[in-house]
Amino acid sequence: MTVTLSATLAANEDIERRRRAGERVLNLAFGEAGLPVHPALRDQLAAASERNGYGPVAGAAGLRTAAAGYWARRGLITDPELVVCGPGSKSLLYGLLLAIGGDVVLPMPSWVSYAAQADLVGSRPILIPAPAGQGGVPDPELVASAVLRARAEGRTVRSLLVTLPDNPTGRLAPRSAIRRLAALARELDLYIISDEIYRDLLHEPTTPFTSPADLAPERTIITTGLSKSLALGGWRIGVARLPDGAHDLRARLLAVASEIWSSPAAPVQEAAAYAFTDPTELTERVRLSRRLHGTLARAVRDRFVEIGASVPAPQGGFYLYPDLSHLRLGGSADITRILLDQHGLGVLPGHAFGDDPAAARVRVAVSLLYGDTTEARLTALTSPDPLQLPWIAASLDHLSMGLKELSLTSREQRPALVPTGCHG
Amino acid sequence: MTVTLSATLAANEDIERRRRAGERVLNLAFGEAGLPVHPALRDQLAAASERNGYGPVAGAAGLRTAAAGYWARRGLITDPELVVCGPGSKSLLYGLLLAIGGDVVLPMPSWVSYAAQADLVGSRPILIPAPAGQGGVPDPELVASAVLRARAEGRTVRSLLVTLPDNPTGRLAPRSAIRRLAALARELDLYIISDEIYRDLLHEPTTPFTSPADLAPERTIITTGLSKSLALGGWRIGVARLPDGAHDLRARLLAVASEIWSSPAAPVQEAAAYAFTDPTELTERVRLSRRLHGTLARAVRDRFVEIGASVPAPQGGFYLYPDLSHLRLGGSADITRILLDQHGLGVLPGHAFGDDPAAARVRVAVSLLYGDTTEARLTALTSPDPLQLPWIAASLDHLSMGLKELSLTSREQRPALVPTGCHG
Repeated sequence: MTVTLSATLAANEDIERRRRAGERVLNLAFGEAGLPVHPALRDQLAAASERNGYGPVAGAAGLRTAAAGYWARRGLITDPELVVCGPGSKSLLYGLLLAIGGDVVLPMPSWVSYAAQADLVGSRPILIPAPAGQGGVPDPELVASAVLRARAEGRTVRSLLVTLPDNPTGRLAPRSAIRRLAALARELDLYIISDEIYRDLLHEPTTPFTSPADLAPERTIITTGLSKSLALGGWRIGVARLPDGAHDLRARLLAVASEIWSSPAAPVQEAAAYAFTDPTELTERVRLSRRLHGTLARAVRDRFVEIGASVPAPQGGFYLYPDLSHLRLGGSADITRILLDQHGLGVLPGHAFGDDPAAARVRVAVSLLYGDTTEARLTALTSPDPLQLPWIAASLDHLSMGLKELSLTSREQRPALVPTGCHG
Repeated sequence: MTVTLSATLAANEDIERRRRAGERVLNLAFGEAGLPVHPALRDQLAAASERNGYGPVAGAAGLRTAAAGYWARRGLITDPELVVCGPGSKSLLYGLLLAIGGDVVLPMPSWVSYAAQADLVGSRPILIPAPAGQGGVPDPELVASAVLRARAEGRTVRSLLVTLPDNPTGRLAPRSAIRRLAALARELDLYIISDEIYRDLLHEPTTPFTSPADLAPERTIITTGLSKSLALGGWRIGVARLPDGAHDLRARLLAVASEIWSSPAAPVQEAAAYAFTDPTELTERVRLSRRLHGTLARAVRDRFVEIGASVPAPQGGFYLYPDLSHLRLGGSADITRILLDQHGLGVLPGHAFGDDPAAARVRVAVSLLYGDTTEARLTALTSPDPLQLPWIAASLDHLSMGLKELSLTSREQRPALVPTGCHG
């Protein structure tokens, strides 16, 4: 087992260290929502501050019922008995990998922590490329052949994980991809773990969303939380929705949870129970957040497109996944280092997401551009034109400048490809 | 891997289910402190409700500095860089077992979760009996021979765990035992993981306390938290103090933490930072708690002693470990079942702590006797004579009655041992 600090958390700590040391660095690496807590949630937390009991391992009944209602309003009737809460969906994903056992199929690229968690629980991830247009869903034929090959070698493969909408690409899998995924999982008898933490942050709320739980309810586990939609990353609260009738899996997950984290913080559970009822003030907050994320994601994408990068148009969340290979400055580690050291642009290398290290793809988070103070962030949230706010405009200028310089450097450094008169 | 719900949590859920169904059951099973949150901590949590960032994996600098001060006031100069925070000391213990790797030596009996956690991380616990009078520290000669034997078989043994004061016995290891333990760990090159979560709850604050970190600072990890001393179990906050210079271990622990829990809940970290400064209002609260736990532990012990049980006199925390083998009603599972089903006394069987299942030893927690409401619990906390409070007196009567009935049942059921005239 070789583990290192989660790539996102490590990059964030490095960038913040540089900023404290006076370096001018844009933090485009860290997946924090970059927005303040809604006052209603602060009130809920304060009101629940007397809650100090451990409570049930699965989470308080009120929270599980609220989460069941949250899913029901999104078309998935949910038994609160099959909801399990944890201190973040990350913890739940870890607990699920441990409880399910066996190896796991992961899209390539996919969120840095999946493969790291698999490694920690002694599972060997099977990385399968996700073709363009599939929103991060791995190629079904490649999955089938890889799983059959692994099983022929005596390995146990039990699950397949997808992120909807996707991290790092910001794309959403179309219904057709989910339909094929569901059929494939059934054929191969795999659990589908569907990480839907960015679901409420689809930039266009009219974009049709299909969860694998809609099509394969008997084998789909959904995880979500409030870290992204309500910017509560630091509050550590996640919920999992287990498949219909999965009482054995529930028992195993609770056994694991009871030995690792006991339960999420009790006052946070109370506030989360409120949030999962979708009260108007919070759905309005999510609506504004979604709009801001979308606006910035498009604006940042434009800057990358301007220098000729290929960037899938983001549909949800606050990430972009530009490919800078055309600059011929090396692979993802090289380009990430150059961006940070020479242009003050902190991003994450694609290889941290399991992508081909030779490709110069990087993950860009836009959510830390909204401002450094609560006031600035709230202004950005409610502004009719956030791109014109001075601090956001300055960051975008920094980005444009950095990318243009990068582009120029590249033209100076790279060998001329087209023979010219001068060089014969 | 076969895991089941943590024995304490499972017993608690079963007892609470019975209580809700109208059964009259005393919950003497669950290790919850049974006291309200101090208002100052509620205020701190409310004031910190705007904190929603993930923050550093090791914990906020303010919390780490406060924890370092906490240890410094207890004689252990501590580098905040070697403090790591987690969502409960349970999580940290799990993370440490994973980060350290190899097999772990555990006292027999010891807290239910250590062996279960070892199992989850793929470590084989080596259970070594703790002799009477050693406060739960395993016999050094048995440890040495077991470790050498395991190593001769090719196993890797890297750590040894102790609880000071001890759970389940409520006893504190004397300095002599810690001295032998430190020497042994050095000889065998083992980390000592010292779980000191009950340290501030020694019933007599003048009882000398020696941490293995006092004598073997280069290899001792201390874990603690606020779940017991300040009754914040449901807030999920723990801290670990790593050995001098253990920067590699720190990196491995943070790597694990970053993939499993990210960080403890941010508002809770702020409140904990306040608590670890030992402000007068909280040290007074701990003093009152300690007195109440001690008073009840002694009163409950008296009831067990009255029916002839052998019970080590408790020195810290809120547990007792009576041995009811003299009743000859079977092993620890039998006696636990009889106590619950026939006498409404919910305890935990000694075998859950790794003890010999044939011995009728049970762990008894006294902390859920203080009352069912915040008001009742506060009254108990400040009462000059809590044993006279009607609800506590009623619970103690229930206990006395149950134990007397148990004792009578036993005399009726067990075969006569002394031949009499009638039976020849």
